Amino acid sequence: MAYWAAAEARDWAGFAALLADDVVYELPQSRERILGKERYVQFNVEYPGDWHLTVHMAVGEERHAATWARFVVGGEEQQALTFFELDDDGLIAKVTDFWPEPYEPPPGREHLVERYSARPDSSA
Amino acid sequence: MAYWAAAEARDWAGFAALLADDVVYELPQSRERILGKERYVQFNVEYPGDWHLTVHMAVGEERHAATWARFVVGGEEQQALTFFELDDDGLIAKVTDFWPEPYEPPPGREHLVERYSARPDSSA
Repeated sequence: MAYWAAAEARDWAGFAALLADDVVYELPQSRERILGKERYVQFNVEYPGDWHLTVHMAVGEERHAATWARFVVGGEEQQALTFFELDDDGLIAKVTDFWPEPYEPPPGREHLVERYSARPDSSA
Repeated sequence: MAYWAAAEARDWAGFAALLADDVVYELPQSRERILGKERYVQFNVEYPGDWHLTVHMAVGEERHAATWARFVVGGEEQQALTFFELDDDGLIAKVTDFWPEPYEPPPGREHLVERYSARPDSSA
């Protein structure tokens, strides 16, 4: 997907070219919002750490898309789930990111569930 | 999407009919895995709480799909991000769920970011 390829390459001109001028970026977990292409590109340029990403799954359908990407920063891996909405020109009008954190399993379902220690796609 | 409609309706026969016999369900955050249709349906049947869901976005493309759903249990809302992989028969062979939790914004990006208090789609 061009969006993530540009980000991984730090090709910020190419990244910006995919965005609508009035793109809206939202992080529902922290209730943060960034308005406009200029600020959103800057947010990505300034994002701290030597992060690298790989796209595990990308799904696109007409004006919507979703990706599941893995970010690695300093040996730590984190998953990013991202939902995209496109405008009439095919530019990205809205990006919504989720960054889920690990948690311990709640009790009561041990009779149905096993634990695994490898990467999420190890069963593929 | 038929999967979520069946779950919301507690139509477990309809829900099961969408699944491959050897469906794999994974929760990467807790490294939990459930193997097989029977166990996975049972997991959903037994899931505690009077939960209700609405699908905010669904994207499908060939053998992959992704959804962003909102669950409400006892007045509390939680987002679920779900990725689906289909088999040759169009049955769901793998389901991967993410349940991200709220967090406080990290410092250093206040110059680009605003906070919002409403639902994630309030800007739509």
